[in-house]
Formats: sequence, structure tokens, C-alpha cells
Amino acid sequence: MHHFVIDAMGGDNAPGCNVLGAHLALQKFPDVELTLTGHEQTLRAEYTKIAPIPTERLYFLNTTQLVTMDDKGTEAVRRKKDSSLTRAFDLVAEKKAHAVISAGNTSAAVFAATLKLRLLPKVERVGIAVILPGSQRPFVLIDAGANTDPRPSHLAQYAIMGTLFSKLIHAIPDPEVGLMNVGTEEGKGTDLTREAYDRIKKLPLRFRGNIEGRDLYENSVDVVVTDGFTGNVILKTSESIAGAMMRWIKKEITASPIATLGALLAKPAFQKIKQKTDYEEYGGMPLLGVDGLCIIAHGSSSHRSILNSVRVARLAAQAGLNKYIAENIAKI
Amino acid sequence: MHHFVIDAMGGDNAPGCNVLGAHLALQKFPDVELTLTGHEQTLRAEYTKIAPIPTERLYFLNTTQLVTMDDKGTEAVRRKKDSSLTRAFDLVAEKKAHAVISAGNTSAAVFAATLKLRLLPKVERVGIAVILPGSQRPFVLIDAGANTDPRPSHLAQYAIMGTLFSKLIHAIPDPEVGLMNVGTEEGKGTDLTREAYDRIKKLPLRFRGNIEGRDLYENSVDVVVTDGFTGNVILKTSESIAGAMMRWIKKEITASPIATLGALLAKPAFQKIKQKTDYEEYGGMPLLGVDGLCIIAHGSSSHRSILNSVRVARLAAQAGLNKYIAENIAKI
Repeated sequence: MHHFVIDAMGGDNAPGCNVLGAHLALQKFPDVELTLTGHEQTLRAEYTKIAPIPTERLYFLNTTQLVTMDDKGTEAVRRKKDSSLTRAFDLVAEKKAHAVISAGNTSAAVFAATLKLRLLPKVERVGIAVILPGSQRPFVLIDAGANTDPRPSHLAQYAIMGTLFSKLIHAIPDPEVGLMNVGTEEGKGTDLTREAYDRIKKLPLRFRGNIEGRDLYENSVDVVVTDGFTGNVILKTSESIAGAMMRWIKKEITASPIATLGALLAKPAFQKIKQKTDYEEYGGMPLLGVDGLCIIAHGSSSHRSILNSVRVARLAAQAGLNKYIAENIAKI
Repeated sequence: MHHFVIDAMGGDNAPGCNVLGAHLALQKFPDVELTLTGHEQTLRAEYTKIAPIPTERLYFLNTTQLVTMDDKGTEAVRRKKDSSLTRAFDLVAEKKAHAVISAGNTSAAVFAATLKLRLLPKVERVGIAVILPGSQRPFVLIDAGANTDPRPSHLAQYAIMGTLFSKLIHAIPDPEVGLMNVGTEEGKGTDLTREAYDRIKKLPLRFRGNIEGRDLYENSVDVVVTDGFTGNVILKTSESIAGAMMRWIKKEITASPIATLGALLAKPAFQKIKQKTDYEEYGGMPLLGVDGLCIIAHGSSSHRSILNSVRVARLAAQAGLNKYIAENIAKI
């Protein structure tokens, strides 16, 4: 049995979507039990809207404080000791839960993970790994927003952790790593990318060198390494353009009756694409480098994203993600 | 009559696509004359493949050196004084041409512009402005790659120049400006974005505050300000995902005969979307802040992109872009 804790007050759609997502996850995964942290009365009231009879395997931990999206991460974790976010990390630190899922303030979650769960041996900074859909197969991007001002050595460690994550999750024996840059030639970019290039080049992993934004979705590499600022912008821009294109297509098609008929015939094909580019499907993103499982969910997570974050936590727990990183990071 | 110069050896598809693009531009715009810089014999040989009879309004300037994509920008401009890129900028500096178009090494073009054409009064650094397709209307993003390590004051100037560009090109009386960041709340992001936020906030322009990648294509603002590293990654990632989605849709649709029939009926709608998301259509990107017109074309420019770069140069010349920026930047 896996026991996960969900920060039920974290995220733009909390607590409603968090509670519904938890309910759906319990229905889907009989080997999972969940604790929801938050204002217990509110959470129970939300819950009775969905299921009048209390579900087995669901627990509540009453908390009295809230970390908002405006809060500064470090201060929020230090001062709001009884927030739904902080208490959720406490449970994992106390070994009472196997993983924490939060759609709340990302910098607070990253700081809580670093402070309470501690880093794995040899790791300097955590990074958020996200799985994105490529033309041929999914690929890993790290860091998607944990560390917006990284040093070159952090990017080199992301190359290592991203390689290990790709090996474990995608079963790729020897994943190829690319460094996100503004040109493919060595020496391009900023001081950060030039120094990171030199460091990654010396590591015993399969380094393709610099890649550009135009290579990103073409599966030129299995692991894309970038700073958390750029990674976060890439992630959210990609969501934006995929969504915008689907709406543009819909708008153009419904403007003509013949095109509308055509779209009806092609509907199953569209649904496949929608699913492929729907970031809700991908759920939460594991925070790599921390000694405990932590899944960062999207700030605007819906119930489906929370459900899929539980799926990701379950996969990571089954695969022994952190043990694998801890055992192998020293070897590279 | 507008006289423009094209760096005919610059870009991944040079000189073939540059020569063809020039030929098409001369056919399309009777008020334009063009000088091509490069190895004259090669250029003339390319030209005879397209049009056996020499076109009026086309001139060649023989150059003996090449700036490659691997060259360091500053060194290339200083050492290769007789390159197609350097000579093209010389012609504008000597007032023999009204604008220069280059698809070559971007950092060399930016350095040549700064060195030879000089900055407009009060401008600290140039920025590349790119027009991107939004859900409702196009919007401006600055900087798309001229300045990968900017200071906060540079971003504040991009906010000003972007506003003026949007006013002039899109005829928006009071364009709204957003700063690209990892969260919308004030105080989010890096030292650079926090300091830039404080500076832009004090300017007499319509500042919306921070925007995220997810807002980008939703026309939440008219002008998006970002550093050249992030801007370049956004631009190329957007190209990548738009292209990938069109291919995914095609693949899914052709997998089923009924969907294929449907797609045939919906073809005109698809073509509109393809055009909207086709970056070739947008041609080159003006370099703002320089005392002379300079259009940066995509490194992988096709002949259509070169043709559209001539179109952009012509519009910028007709609108008096630099005069407008020079006259108005002091007022803000």
C-alpha cells in the first residue's frame, strides 16, 4: 500500500479540484491511500458534494494556515508552520507518507522539499523533471522551474539526473542529452550555457551538445537540460500554443459547413492529438535530487491533473526513483 | 525608390534561396532595388538558373570573405572586413542603401549594426522585435536574440521600443506591455526580472506586469518583453510545436480513410491555420534601436522568408520606423 499526502489547499482550483482528484485517484488505484492536508471542515464539505459516504483509504490532517501564490517561498515555509503545504512535507519527512503532491506555490514547495526532506548525497540543487510529448516519443526536460538562477554545476547535475530519470521511466538504455541554447555551435549562448557545456562534455554520458528550440519536439534528444526560468517558459508556452492551435482549428472549421462535416469525420484523429498535447494528461512533475518523493503539480491543476499526479507518484514509488538516483549519481 | 542590400551569402540556404528571394521581391515590389553582396560569380550563376536575362533594379557587390555560423560575432566583423555581411552593413552606413537584410550569423549582424550604424540617441542596446500570431491579433516580442545577457535597463528600453513599434506597425494607440516571467505575481522570477519590473513600472506606458508562457498566444498583452536568450527559445520552440502539431494531425488523419475524407473537406481551414503559424510568412525581424534599418532573417530562411524580409524592410522604411523611435524614445 502506498500512502501519499496531497496539499489540498494548494493551487488555483483548490480545494475543490484537489478533493475531486483525490477521490478519483482512490477509485482508480486500490493500492493507494491518501491524506489531504488543509482546513478539515472545508475539505469534508467539498467531499460530501462528491461522495456522501466517506471513502476508505482517505484521511484528513487539519491545518490552519495557507501558503498563497504571492508568498515568498522561503518565508512562507519558515513562518507558516501549520500550512497545508508545510504539513504535507512534514508527513513525508516523518516517514508517515511516501510522497507529497502539491499544486501550490512552486518556490515554497521546492524550499520545503530541500529543507525538510533534504537533498540526496552529492546533489547540489533540486530540479523539476517534466515529460513532454515529442514527434516520435516523449522526452524529459529538466529543470522546469525549481531553480531560476542556476550555476553551471547545477545544469551538469541536471544532465546526470535527467539521464537516470529517462533510463528508469522510458527504459532508454543510453539516453542522449542536449543543452538548450540559442544556437547549436559550441560557444553559443550565455556564460551559463558555455560553462555548463564544458562541464557536461566531460561527464560519462551521451551528450549531443547544444540544441535549439526548433529541435525540441523533434526528438533530437531524450533529455533536455535548461535553467528553471527558460524551462518554465518553454513548458507554459508549449501549453499555450498547443491550446491556441486547437482553438484556431476549431474556429476555422466551424466557419464553413463543409469543413464542419469534414471535422466530424476526422474527429477521432483530433481527439488523439488533443490527448497528446493535453498537459493535464501528464499530471505532476517529480522533483529530482530530493531524499523523498515530491510531485509538483501545475498551479492551475484540474482534478485530472491531481489524479495523474497520484499516478506519477505511484510509478515513481514503484520504480524506486530516488534510490536509483542515489545509487547511480555517484557512478557518473 | 527603396534601395536595400541583402547579405546573399548569409544563412543555411544561401546563396540559392537568397538569390531566388531577391528575384521574387523585385518582381513583387516595383519600387524596390536590391544589391546582393557575396561572391559575384557564384551569385550570377545562381541567378541565371532562375532568370536568364538580367533583371533591372538588381546589383551585385563582390565580396571575398564569409562569416560562418560558427564565427564569434565580434571577431568576424572586425577581421572579415570584406565579408558579404560586413559589406552589406557598410553600404547602409555609407547611406548607399536604406536597409540591410541578413540571414547570417545573428551575433555578427547585431555587432555590425551596433558598430557601423551606431545606436539611436539614448538607446543602450539593440533588440530584435518579432511579430507573432496571437489568438485574436498579432503581437510583438522583444528581444528575440540580440542580447542574451541583458541588464534590467535594457529590458526597460525594450518595453519602450516595443511599445513604439506596436503603435506604428499595428496602429494600437496605447499598447499594453507584459514582462515574461515564471509567475504573474510581483517579485517572481530572477534578479533580472524583478529589477526590470521595478523599472518598467515607473515608465509612462501601459504596463500589465508579469505574464507567463501560458498567456503568450492569448493576446493578454500587445508587447512581450524578455531577454534575448528566453526570447530566442520561445520563438524557435513555438515554430517547433506548431510544425509538429500539423504533422501529428496529418499522420493521425491519414491513418484512417474516413478521417482522410474529412480532412479533404476541411482543407481550406487547415491551410489558413498553416499560414497563420508559418513563420516563413512573417519574414525578417527588425533590429530596434539602431540608426539605420536592419532586418534579421531566420538562419534557415527559405526564398519566401527573404521575400518577406524585403516586404518588412519596405514597410519599416515607408513608416519611418527609426525616425519614429528616435523622436519618441526621449518623450517616454
